[in-house]
Amino acid sequence: MASGVSSLQFIPSGGGDRRPILRVLDQSVLPHQIAYVDCSTKEDVFDVIKTMKVRGAPAIGSAGAFALALEALRLQQDLGKVEHDALLKAKSYIDSARPTAVNLSWATGVALKAGLRDGARVDVGGVVEAAEMIHKEDIIANRKLGAYGAAHILSRCGDERPIRLIHHCNTGFLATCGHGTALGVCYSLAEEVGKENILVYVDETRPRMQGASLTCFELQQQGVPHRLITDGMSGHMMKSKSVDAVVFGCDRVAANGDVANKIGTYNLAIVARYHRVPVYCCMPTSTLDLSCKTGADIIIEERDESEVTTVNGKLICPAGTEVCNPAFDVTPAELITAFITEYGVIEGPDFTAALQKLRHA
Amino acid sequence: MASGVSSLQFIPSGGGDRRPILRVLDQSVLPHQIAYVDCSTKEDVFDVIKTMKVRGAPAIGSAGAFALALEALRLQQDLGKVEHDALLKAKSYIDSARPTAVNLSWATGVALKAGLRDGARVDVGGVVEAAEMIHKEDIIANRKLGAYGAAHILSRCGDERPIRLIHHCNTGFLATCGHGTALGVCYSLAEEVGKENILVYVDETRPRMQGASLTCFELQQQGVPHRLITDGMSGHMMKSKSVDAVVFGCDRVAANGDVANKIGTYNLAIVARYHRVPVYCCMPTSTLDLSCKTGADIIIEERDESEVTTVNGKLICPAGTEVCNPAFDVTPAELITAFITEYGVIEGPDFTAALQKLRHA
Repeated sequence: MASGVSSLQFIPSGGGDRRPILRVLDQSVLPHQIAYVDCSTKEDVFDVIKTMKVRGAPAIGSAGAFALALEALRLQQDLGKVEHDALLKAKSYIDSARPTAVNLSWATGVALKAGLRDGARVDVGGVVEAAEMIHKEDIIANRKLGAYGAAHILSRCGDERPIRLIHHCNTGFLATCGHGTALGVCYSLAEEVGKENILVYVDETRPRMQGASLTCFELQQQGVPHRLITDGMSGHMMKSKSVDAVVFGCDRVAANGDVANKIGTYNLAIVARYHRVPVYCCMPTSTLDLSCKTGADIIIEERDESEVTTVNGKLICPAGTEVCNPAFDVTPAELITAFITEYGVIEGPDFTAALQKLRHA
Repeated sequence: MASGVSSLQFIPSGGGDRRPILRVLDQSVLPHQIAYVDCSTKEDVFDVIKTMKVRGAPAIGSAGAFALALEALRLQQDLGKVEHDALLKAKSYIDSARPTAVNLSWATGVALKAGLRDGARVDVGGVVEAAEMIHKEDIIANRKLGAYGAAHILSRCGDERPIRLIHHCNTGFLATCGHGTALGVCYSLAEEVGKENILVYVDETRPRMQGASLTCFELQQQGVPHRLITDGMSGHMMKSKSVDAVVFGCDRVAANGDVANKIGTYNLAIVARYHRVPVYCCMPTSTLDLSCKTGADIIIEERDESEVTTVNGKLICPAGTEVCNPAFDVTPAELITAFITEYGVIEGPDFTAALQKLRHA
């Protein structure tokens, strides 16, 4: 399913003096504007990551690798050569844009390593190639994940159409280099059975509303039927409609299958269990963290109070109201029906052995 | 616990020519402004009900009865007498402000009946007295309900302080004539153990945000410690903190104990059950509808799409996004630990016989 809109696009030199650019879709003004930021330096990319114009772990990683490629190309053109040290410094600088994003330092590390093959001089072509490869491979992995997920869900559905899914947060082409993970499964399903035969209920995903602003935007772009719901409606939807599956992505998965993901995921999974609706966590293997034994090892970041107290720039509560704002919650493995990965579907109830076998990208 | 702010205040004639007024707290501008609308005619009251400046079933009922009293007093002063027919017409007119609100026609009915005691002339004093009585009795009932609830919850709590409760929507002095139902239980608990020993987690209650705007306002006014949370956070709070109880009100309770209440209640109750946190439905007996056998008989009203798609007057999703917006959901009796009423606490699992015994107000 082609979107016509992509989160990142690397445009090699247009000929003559024109330098290559990374064209970044500005997610901070979505869904009301489709605007792009053209980045021609590592500083430009640092800025779009820092200000969350680009978001979603795989998309951030890819942007970081492209930033390193832009820097290598610039040094090559300006100085005629690129020293290892200069590129190492550039990597540290880029990584500092989102220090907790594992994918970012992983991707810049891969691109850097590709450039350090021969002696003291950096292989600039190697860096660029590696950055392009990271981008391409993410899309390939997502398409595989989507196909596995669609086939699995289809095999478990009855004949009633539309197939109804509930989706949390944003996990589509905006959050990745293309196609997406949990939304990728929805797109693959739509390709399989026809768009008119699926219906996605979109959790708005308070407090940051990624569901309302980004997932609805994606589904509208793709022409996939959907309905926006508030996060408190999922139980009513499961009871009053026949919901076939709950799908979401993940920020980190522990060795036992406990899943850290956007706040609200845990409630949704509990509600699905109560209704015996299967719960699918869509997990690119890069998100598996075998060094975490269980979800108890995952530290939950508290974000700024203003995310809860204000919407569209205005207070929704009295001034001075205190809030809780955990960015993530942990859904225990026992609530996950299966993990959908680019290598296939891993069914529960015991995930530990199967997750151990997956290669950590 | 005195609030200093009440939803409704009836002010009899201030002497001379000044007519009596019903002073209504304008809930539509809360929490940012505390403003009152002085209503001196039935038309004024109709308007504040219609435009939801006053909301909450008991508060609406009381306002309606006062509207009838204002009309009787006006006719008395202008014409020297009040005919039955004129007051009957006034009742129909007032009831049409919120035709589905059971409490409204019930309250105007009680006030009307009190005026029809003697022959053709309306007993104006009887109407006024009845309206004042409805208002007073609601507060008395809520204080009883609050005391029963506080004692019950206290007897079930461990020694750890603060006592932590999760509350959904708004059920306090704004929604009623005073004290409130589920929030009334919180206030009664605070009186019992000291404000510093309770902590209320306030579900913001999308889409209309009554938790964020009204419940936080009330708790701030009362000085009761609280934290605003989004509706998707309750599971995380129960897992990471020791939550002692979930409390909410109800819009209609069926004969078997199924509860129709603000959308999001059902998810909250399921999540509480998963964590073995007790779930208390605070039910003035006026909300019990024995003519409904089960929750399946309760029709769920779909409200306007704009409640979901816009917050603070701005879209949160792409233009044209379709939504679901059920105003209520039905929580099955099996998820309710106990009903808290003005006559005492009714514990499950089987509520049918005990609910049957309660007098329907």
